Formats: sequence, C-alpha cells, structure tokens
Amino acid sequence: MDYPKEWINYTREELLAILSKNLSKKRYQHILRVEEEALKLADYYHADCAEVSLAALLHDYAKERSDAEYLHYIDEHPQFAMLRPYGNNIWHGMIGALFAKKELGLNNPNVVRAIQLHTVGGKQMTQLDKIIFIADYIEPNRHFEGVDEARKLAYTNLNQAVSYALSHTLIYLIQRGYPIFPMTLDAYNHWVGRIGDE
Amino acid sequence: MDYPKEWINYTREELLAILSKNLSKKRYQHILRVEEEALKLADYYHADCAEVSLAALLHDYAKERSDAEYLHYIDEHPQFAMLRPYGNNIWHGMIGALFAKKELGLNNPNVVRAIQLHTVGGKQMTQLDKIIFIADYIEPNRHFEGVDEARKLAYTNLNQAVSYALSHTLIYLIQRGYPIFPMTLDAYNHWVGRIGDE
Repeated sequence: MDYPKEWINYTREELLAILSKNLSKKRYQHILRVEEEALKLADYYHADCAEVSLAALLHDYAKERSDAEYLHYIDEHPQFAMLRPYGNNIWHGMIGALFAKKELGLNNPNVVRAIQLHTVGGKQMTQLDKIIFIADYIEPNRHFEGVDEARKLAYTNLNQAVSYALSHTLIYLIQRGYPIFPMTLDAYNHWVGRIGDE
Repeated sequence: MDYPKEWINYTREELLAILSKNLSKKRYQHILRVEEEALKLADYYHADCAEVSLAALLHDYAKERSDAEYLHYIDEHPQFAMLRPYGNNIWHGMIGALFAKKELGLNNPNVVRAIQLHTVGGKQMTQLDKIIFIADYIEPNRHFEGVDEARKLAYTNLNQAVSYALSHTLIYLIQRGYPIFPMTLDAYNHWVGRIGDE
C-alpha cells in the first residue's frame, strides 16, 4: 500500500522495515495484528484504508523508548508537564505520535490524533480514533476475559465497543491500583456515563 | 452532647429533632449509625468527638431535597455549573453542606468540608474527612461484598481504608455505567495510584 506523499514520505513496505528494525519482534507482530484488525474494521465501517493502515502501523511506534527519553521531552515541553506521573502507557501515545511526526515526517493530523488517543480514549473520538482504539483492544492475539464480547460489539456498534473497552480498561487499572489519566475518565463519562459538554 | 456555640446554635438533641422531622425514617436511622461508627473511629484515632458527631449527623442533611431545588441552586451559583450533570449523589454533599451552613448556621469549616467530601472523596483529606467518608461506607447496616475487609482496614490503617473504599466505589460505579465525578478520580489517583501534586 502506498500512502499519499503529503501524509508521509514512506511506503508501507518502507515503514515496515523501519518498525521491524527498531522494535522488538513481539511488538512488531502486535502492530501487524492491529493493522489487520483495523483494516477489517475499516472495511466494515467504510473508513479510509490508507489512514487506518498508517495509524495502525504507527500506533506503538515509540512504545519502546526509554522513560528517560520521554521525561527529557516532557521537561523540554512544559505543556506536557501533567503527563509526567502517568508513565509509558500514556506517553507512548500522546508523545509518541509527536515523535513519529518529527522523525518520520508524519503529516496527517487525523493519524497523529488517532495515535495520541489510542490508549487514553477521548470525549470526542473520530471514526478513525475509534477503529485504532478498538483494533488495539481486540487484535487476534488478545485473550482477556470479555474479549469475545468486545469483538462482537466491534462489528455491531463501534460506539458500544468503545464504551465496553473504556469500562473494562478502567476496571482493569483500578483492580491493579494503577493511576488513571483524566482524559480516560472524560472519555468514560462521555461514552458510558452520558455526561454532556455542559 | 453539646457543640460549641460558635459552630452551631443547636444541641445534639435539637439537631436530632430537626433531622427526624425532615428526613425519612430510613435516612434518619442511617445517620445515627454513621454517627455511631464515626464516634468509634474518632475514639480509635483520637479525633475531636464533637466535630465528628456534628459532621456525621449532618452528612446527609440535604440528601432528600428535590433535584429541582439543587438545579435551581446551581443555576443561581455559576461556580457550581460543572456539578450539574452528576445528580443527587454528588449534590447532596457538595451543595448540601452549604444548605446546612445557611439553614442551620453551621459555622465550622472542617465540618462543612467533611460533609462536602463524604461521597466524592478528595486528593487532600483531613482525618475528619476520612472518618466521615469511611463511617458512611462501613456503618453497621452495610452488607456489600468486601465490607468486612473495609471494616478491618478502617481500624488498622485509615488511609488504606480510604484507598479500598475509593477503588471499590469506582468499580461499583463503572459496573453500573454511572458517571464518575472528576474529584473522585483525583482522590483515586492520589490515594491509590500514588500520583503526586506535580
């Protein structure tokens, strides 16, 4: 697959080579499975396959960077100071997307946004945001309790799948005592708790 | 028990008469049980019994007011606009404490604060805030799964009891798809997720 040159100056094959070289085998294979699932969803919901493929391939582009690299970036960019305590799970989306932008010349704001939201979710999510969020949650190698229900919802009602994933992700985090990023609560309150924008 | 006149111009007996007259029997008896539990905690942790008694008696003072009364108050006080979508569970503490202040002349800021935080919790909680929060959670008539563990923690480590109550309350809300007040997430992130004040 080729992507429009205005979005990124690499073909899919060239991007795969970059990812394969820079990430662990495990991560690389996860990325391929997320792309596979995301393209199935794109097909089902008539989304733009090139955007979906690009966002899927790059969603974990910077997941294996060191905490030190992220903390250095946060210290240099005070607008991200509130991300500091939340760790790699939050950083690799919210900041990792900006690394892809800078290092790969990624220049499609829809794709950047979908990468940023892929772990935290958001009160406002585009169809692309939802597809990447859900593909990452249900890719073929996920085996958690409830994944079958999530898969079923993904191909029935994408918004209900987002609600399901947000609720179950929050419970997962709380059961383990992990911190919860405020945007994820906003997303939950919007998609599940039906809190409007008043 | 008498309270200092500077705090409130009613004795405990006079307050009980007011509560009994204005609340359902069920609510009134819950209040007495919360006071009983809170005074046990006050004794155990050497807290001020008069403050604990007063906060316990008034924690649900305005719980049975109508949504219309709260919504009218919110519309008249724009600083509370963000409370609007969260309903009585949040209003009866955050705003109910101000009704007690206005209608009963309650004039002890520690007590007002403990009433305000008793359902939402907070990143910063005083010993009094914690005692009221926990007493309401474990009063003798509570029968949910995990209440024995909560009771044990309450008399071992008050902070751990707060963590436990916050985690379990969040999971309870999420399992039912109820909205979550952002202060409760702040409290969770502080007491459970160990997110500092950076």
